[in-house]
Amino acid sequence: MLRVGVVGYGYWGPNLARNFSLHPNFKLIRIADRDADRRAAARQTYPEVEIIADAQLLCSDPEIDVVVIATPVFTHHELARQALLNGKHVWVEKPMTSTSEQAKELVDLAESRDLILMVDHTFLFTGPVQTMKSLIDRDELGSLYYYDSVRINLGIFQHDINVIWDLAPHDLSIMDYLLGPTARAVCAHGRGHYDTGLEDVAYVSVFYDNNLIAHFHLNWLSPVKMRRTLVGGSKKMLAWDDMNQEESLKVYNKGMDVKNREGMYKVLATPRFGDMYAPVVPNIEALKTEVNYFNQCIINGERPHNDGSAGLRIVKMLEATDRSLARDGRVIELEDAWVAK
Amino acid sequence: MLRVGVVGYGYWGPNLARNFSLHPNFKLIRIADRDADRRAAARQTYPEVEIIADAQLLCSDPEIDVVVIATPVFTHHELARQALLNGKHVWVEKPMTSTSEQAKELVDLAESRDLILMVDHTFLFTGPVQTMKSLIDRDELGSLYYYDSVRINLGIFQHDINVIWDLAPHDLSIMDYLLGPTARAVCAHGRGHYDTGLEDVAYVSVFYDNNLIAHFHLNWLSPVKMRRTLVGGSKKMLAWDDMNQEESLKVYNKGMDVKNREGMYKVLATPRFGDMYAPVVPNIEALKTEVNYFNQCIINGERPHNDGSAGLRIVKMLEATDRSLARDGRVIELEDAWVAK
Amino acid sequence: MLRVGVVGYGYWGPNLARNFSLHPNFKLIRIADRDADRRAAARQTYPEVEIIADAQLLCSDPEIDVVVIATPVFTHHELARQALLNGKHVWVEKPMTSTSEQAKELVDLAESRDLILMVDHTFLFTGPVQTMKSLIDRDELGSLYYYDSVRINLGIFQHDINVIWDLAPHDLSIMDYLLGPTARAVCAHGRGHYDTGLEDVAYVSVFYDNNLIAHFHLNWLSPVKMRRTLVGGSKKMLAWDDMNQEESLKVYNKGMDVKNREGMYKVLATPRFGDMYAPVVPNIEALKTEVNYFNQCIINGERPHNDGSAGLRIVKMLEATDRSLARDGRVIELEDAWVAK
Amino acid sequence: MLRVGVVGYGYWGPNLARNFSLHPNFKLIRIADRDADRRAAARQTYPEVEIIADAQLLCSDPEIDVVVIATPVFTHHELARQALLNGKHVWVEKPMTSTSEQAKELVDLAESRDLILMVDHTFLFTGPVQTMKSLIDRDELGSLYYYDSVRINLGIFQHDINVIWDLAPHDLSIMDYLLGPTARAVCAHGRGHYDTGLEDVAYVSVFYDNNLIAHFHLNWLSPVKMRRTLVGGSKKMLAWDDMNQEESLKVYNKGMDVKNREGMYKVLATPRFGDMYAPVVPNIEALKTEVNYFNQCIINGERPHNDGSAGLRIVKMLEATDRSLARDGRVIELEDAWVAK
Repeated sequence: MLRVGVVGYGYWGPNLARNFSLHPNFKLIRIADRDADRRAAARQTYPEVEIIADAQLLCSDPEIDVVVIATPVFTHHELARQALLNGKHVWVEKPMTSTSEQAKELVDLAESRDLILMVDHTFLFTGPVQTMKSLIDRDELGSLYYYDSVRINLGIFQHDINVIWDLAPHDLSIMDYLLGPTARAVCAHGRGHYDTGLEDVAYVSVFYDNNLIAHFHLNWLSPVKMRRTLVGGSKKMLAWDDMNQEESLKVYNKGMDVKNREGMYKVLATPRFGDMYAPVVPNIEALKTEVNYFNQCIINGERPHNDGSAGLRIVKMLEATDRSLARDGRVIELEDAWVAK
Repeated sequence: MLRVGVVGYGYWGPNLARNFSLHPNFKLIRIADRDADRRAAARQTYPEVEIIADAQLLCSDPEIDVVVIATPVFTHHELARQALLNGKHVWVEKPMTSTSEQAKELVDLAESRDLILMVDHTFLFTGPVQTMKSLIDRDELGSLYYYDSVRINLGIFQHDINVIWDLAPHDLSIMDYLLGPTARAVCAHGRGHYDTGLEDVAYVSVFYDNNLIAHFHLNWLSPVKMRRTLVGGSKKMLAWDDMNQEESLKVYNKGMDVKNREGMYKVLATPRFGDMYAPVVPNIEALKTEVNYFNQCIINGERPHNDGSAGLRIVKMLEATDRSLARDGRVIELEDAWVAK
Repeated sequence: MLRVGVVGYGYWGPNLARNFSLHPNFKLIRIADRDADRRAAARQTYPEVEIIADAQLLCSDPEIDVVVIATPVFTHHELARQALLNGKHVWVEKPMTSTSEQAKELVDLAESRDLILMVDHTFLFTGPVQTMKSLIDRDELGSLYYYDSVRINLGIFQHDINVIWDLAPHDLSIMDYLLGPTARAVCAHGRGHYDTGLEDVAYVSVFYDNNLIAHFHLNWLSPVKMRRTLVGGSKKMLAWDDMNQEESLKVYNKGMDVKNREGMYKVLATPRFGDMYAPVVPNIEALKTEVNYFNQCIINGERPHNDGSAGLRIVKMLEATDRSLARDGRVIELEDAWVAK
Repeated sequence: MLRVGVVGYGYWGPNLARNFSLHPNFKLIRIADRDADRRAAARQTYPEVEIIADAQLLCSDPEIDVVVIATPVFTHHELARQALLNGKHVWVEKPMTSTSEQAKELVDLAESRDLILMVDHTFLFTGPVQTMKSLIDRDELGSLYYYDSVRINLGIFQHDINVIWDLAPHDLSIMDYLLGPTARAVCAHGRGHYDTGLEDVAYVSVFYDNNLIAHFHLNWLSPVKMRRTLVGGSKKMLAWDDMNQEESLKVYNKGMDVKNREGMYKVLATPRFGDMYAPVVPNIEALKTEVNYFNQCIINGERPHNDGSAGLRIVKMLEATDRSLARDGRVIELEDAWVAK
C-alpha cells in the first residue's frame, strides 16, 4: 500500500484525490492547499484525510511514498524537486515545469534515485487516443500527411501561462505518444487581447519528416467548445470529436488516388470516397487507467512512457513556441531537443 | 439589353451561364469552351446560344458587350485583357490573375476605358456574409479579436494553383469586404503530399492592427467537408457554419469580463455566458444577387466593391503567401500592398 | 423517342420537366398549367416547348405518348383517366388519387390497355433507400423490430390534403418497397390547429407480423426540418438522416444480447455496443434514375415496382388513416387491402 | 439536521446518497441494499455511514427522519408505507408506485400524518424545464399546439416495468408541471421483441383541450441516444435537445401566419421564419436543487409541487397506457383521474 499526498486541491486536484483514494494499492493520507476554502472542501469529502496548508511540508513528509502535484505550473519544479530529494515517487501535472532546465533536473534526480516520475498527460489514456495509437501502429492510416487539432472554448484564463502552455501539451503529448520524438521544428503565432501579456488565441505548427504537418488551434475566446482532431493518411483518414461521446472516432476510407501521367499535368488525382466506420472506443475513465498504470510502474520499477523525459520533450517544444512567438513566428528547429534522452 | 459571352463551361461556368441567361437585362449569346464534351453539354442546355471553341474569338466579338471568364487562373489575364481592349465589361472568376502585375494592368485598362471589371467573390453576396457585414458595421461585435476559418474537404486538386490560391480567396475577400484594406502582414505554412509541387494542406495567418488575427485552415485532404468561421469580438462572438442551412449564423453574447486589480495577478478575467441568437439570414442565391449588382454597376457606371482593385488586393495577399511559403513561413509585410489602389 | 407532356408546372413540375427534357429517349413537347405566371416561367426555361393552359387538351393530344401529372391530388384521377383512355403511358405524382376506387380504376385501365402507369414515389430511387433495401435483402439487419420516421418541417400547408396524405406516402411507399405488401393494420392520431379542417400534426402507426411496428411523425409545424429514420433489427440497427448529405446512412452493430435463465427474471438482456459504419451511398439524382427506369419499363413493357398497384396500396393505407382519425385512433385492419393487386 | 436513510444503492441510489450527504441540513446515516456487492460499494464511499441489508429495518428505524427510496418500482409502496407509518418524510423514485390505489394510500397517509411525500421527478428541476416553464408562464409561446418528445437509447431493460413505465414518467411529469393536471385522454401503442412480456418500443399520445397533442417516442432499442423535445405554439416554437449541453434550448420565432379569405381555399397559411435564440439555461445539478427544495418543504411544512398527488397523477396516466395497450391502442379518457386531488 503506497501512501499518497496530493498537493493542490483546485480544479484538477479533486479528480486526482478521488482516483487515488479509490485505487486499492494507494492510500490517500494527506492533501495540501494554501487556500482555506479549498481545504474546507477537501475536508468535507475526505474526513479521514489530513488536510494541511503547507505544500513543502507534505513533500518532505516521511509518512508519504507518493506525491501528486496539481498546483500552478511555476511551482511544479520546486515541489517535485523536494519530493524526489525526499525519496518519493512523483506524479506531476502538465506542463511538467516552466523551463526545460527545471525538467531536466527532475529527470536526472528521478533517474539517479530510481524513483518514478510521471507527467499527467491524461489524454494518452483515453479510449480515442488508445484506439488511434493502435490504428497507426498497425498502419491502417498509411503515411501520415497531417494532424489538425482544434482545442477551443470560452476558457478560464490562466494567470501564469498563455493559451499554448495551457492547451498545447495535450496535442504535443498525443503526437509524441503516437509517433515518438520525431518532431523537427515548431512555430507559433498568437495574440493576446487583454492586459495580461499572455496570448489567448494561438496557432501552433509542428513539422515532421516526409511533409507531415501538425497544427493546433488553441483559443480561450471561442463561443463554442470544440475538441476536434483530423488526421490524414495516405490510406485512410480519421476524425476525432471528443465532444461527441457516442461516435467520438470515425475512420474514413477516403483519400486521393493519384496517377502519374504524360502531358500537360503530370499528376491526375481523383478523390476516393469509401466507407466510414466508427470503431468501438473503450469507455474508460482515463485518469483511473493512468493511476493504475502509475501503480504498476512503481511496483515493477518500470519507466512509464509518459515519464519525465516525455514531459521534458513537451516543455522543450513549448519553449520553442515561446521563441517563435518572440521572433514573429519564425520556425524553430528542434534539432537538439531529443538528444537529452 | 447587354449581350453576354461566357468563356469556360467547366465546373462554375454553367452556374454563370444559367444566372446570366435568367437575368432580364442580360442576353446570353455565346459560350466558348475548348473541350468538345463541355460544348456538347452547353449546346443541350442552351440550344439557342452559339457554342464555340475559341475563347479569343469570343473576347473580341463585336456583338458582345460583356465577357464572363470562368477558365483556369493562368488564362484570366490574357482573356480579360483582350476583352477590355475590345471595349467589353468583364466578369472574371477568382482569383483574378496569376500575378499582381497582371491584375494591375487590368485595373488600369478598365479604368482608362471606363469599363466595369468585376471579380467574382461570390461569398460577399451570400446571406451570412451580408449579415456579418451589417453586424460589424453597427458594432454589435465590438473590437474584433480574431477571425478563424476552416475551409476543408476532399477536394478537386487544381492543376495550376495550390490549395491557398484555390480556397483562400474566399476568406481574404470576405475579410477585405468586412474590414476594408487593412491587413498588415501575412504568413503561410503548407505541405504537399503528391508529386505536384503544390500544397494540398495549408495554414494562412493574416495580421491586422490592434491584435486582430485572421487564420485560415485550407485543405484538399479532409475526410469531412467543413465551412466554419468563428469571429471573436470584445462584445460578442459569432459562428458561421455554411454547411448548416437552417442555422448558418449564430451570434453569442459571450466574452470575457475583465477587471484590473491589485495584487499578484493584475487582471481578473471571468467568462460571460449570455444568450445566443440566430438571426434570419436572407435565403438568396448569391450568384443571382451578384449578377444583378453587376448589371446595376454597368448601367449606372458605378465601381463595384468587388472591382479589379479588390481582386488585385487579394492577388497581392496570395503572392505574399507564396513568398512566405518560400521563406519557411516568414511573416510578409503588406505595407505597400494597398498603395496601388 | 417518346413525346412527353407535363401537366402542372408548380412546385415539383419543373423538376419533372427538367429530367424528362434531359433524357435522350424522351422529348418534352408540351407543358400545361392553368396559372399564367407558371406558364410564363415554363416558357422562359423551355422556349421550344409548347405551353398551354388546358390540361384536358394535353391528355388527349395525339402527338403525345407520355403524360406526366404533377397537379393537386384531387385532379389526378380525371387527368390520368383521360390520358390512359387516349392510349398514353402515365407518370403520376403521389399520392396517386384521392380514393382507392379511383386508383383501382386507373390500375384496371392501364392493365387492359397495356400501358405503363407509374406513381412517382421518388424516395425509392434515392441512394439511401436503395442501400437500405440491399441491407435488408441480404439480411444484414436480421428480423426487423421497428421502423421509426420523423418527417417534419415548417411546411407549405396543402389545401386539399392533410399532413398525412402529404408526407406519409414517402414512408408508406418505402416500407412497401422494403418489405412488400405485408402491412396488417394502421392507426393515426392527429390534430389541426388552423381553421382548415386538416390535420397539421399527425402520428401514424403501421403494424406488421412478428411485432414489427412502423411509426411516422408527420408535422407541418416544426421549427426545424428533420428527415430521420431509425430501423431496429435483431442483428443490426440503422439510422438514416436525409439532411446529412455526407453520412446519411449509419449501420450499427448494436442490439440486445438476450439469455433465458432461471429465477426471478427469466430473461437477461445485455446491450451490445459494436462498431458503426456508414456505407458509401450512391450520390445519384433520384428523379433522373426514376425517369430512366420509367423509360426502360415502357420500352420493355415491364411493370414497374412502383406501378399503379403500389400506388393503390398506398392510397388504401391513407384511407385507413382517415378512418382511424374519424374513429379516435382506432386500429384499422388492412386485411383485404392487398387482394385487389 | 435531518437524519437520512437511503434504501437501494443501485443505479440512482449513489446519486441520491451523494446529494443528501453533501447538503448541510441532511445527515446521511444509513444505506440499505440487499445486494452484498452494492453494500461493499456503499461502504467504500461512505465509511462513516451504517450499511445494512434490510430495507424494512431502515424504514422503521427511530433514528431516521427521512427515508429515500430508490428500489425497483414494485417495492415502493410497501417501503414508503412503512416509512410513513413510522412518521418519516419520504422521497420516492419515479414512478411512485405500481398502482394508483397504492399511490392514493400513500398520499392519504402522508396527508393525515402531516408528512412530506415527494416523488423524484428530477427533470422538473433541470435548467431547461425551469426555462420552459417560465417561457410558457409568461405566454411567450402562445397557445400550445403540440409537445413531441423522443426519449430513446439502447437501454437497460427493466425487469418489472415496460419502456413506458420506465421513461414516460419524465415526459408525463414535465407536462403535468408545465400545464397542470389538464390531460384529457391517453393512448399507447407498443411492441416487445424479447421473451419478457414487456414493450421495449412504445408510442404514447396524450390529448388536451384546444387540440393540444403530446406524443412520446420511448425506446430501449435505439442505436443512438436521443433526448429531444419539440414544442409548437401559436406564437413561437421551441426545441430542447438534452444531449446538447451547450445549446440545449432553442426558441424559434417561427410559425404560420394565417389569413381567412374568400374563394376556393378559405385559409391562406404562410410560414413565418424569424430569429432563433438560445436563452442562457442555468447550469445547475437538478438533483442538488431538488434535495434542497425537499429540505425547504420539510422545514416550512410546505407541500412540494412534485408531491404524492403529482406522483399519483403520473401513475394514473401510466395505468391508462396499460389499459390502452391491452385494448389495441384505444384512447382512454382520464375524466376522473384528477378528482382524487
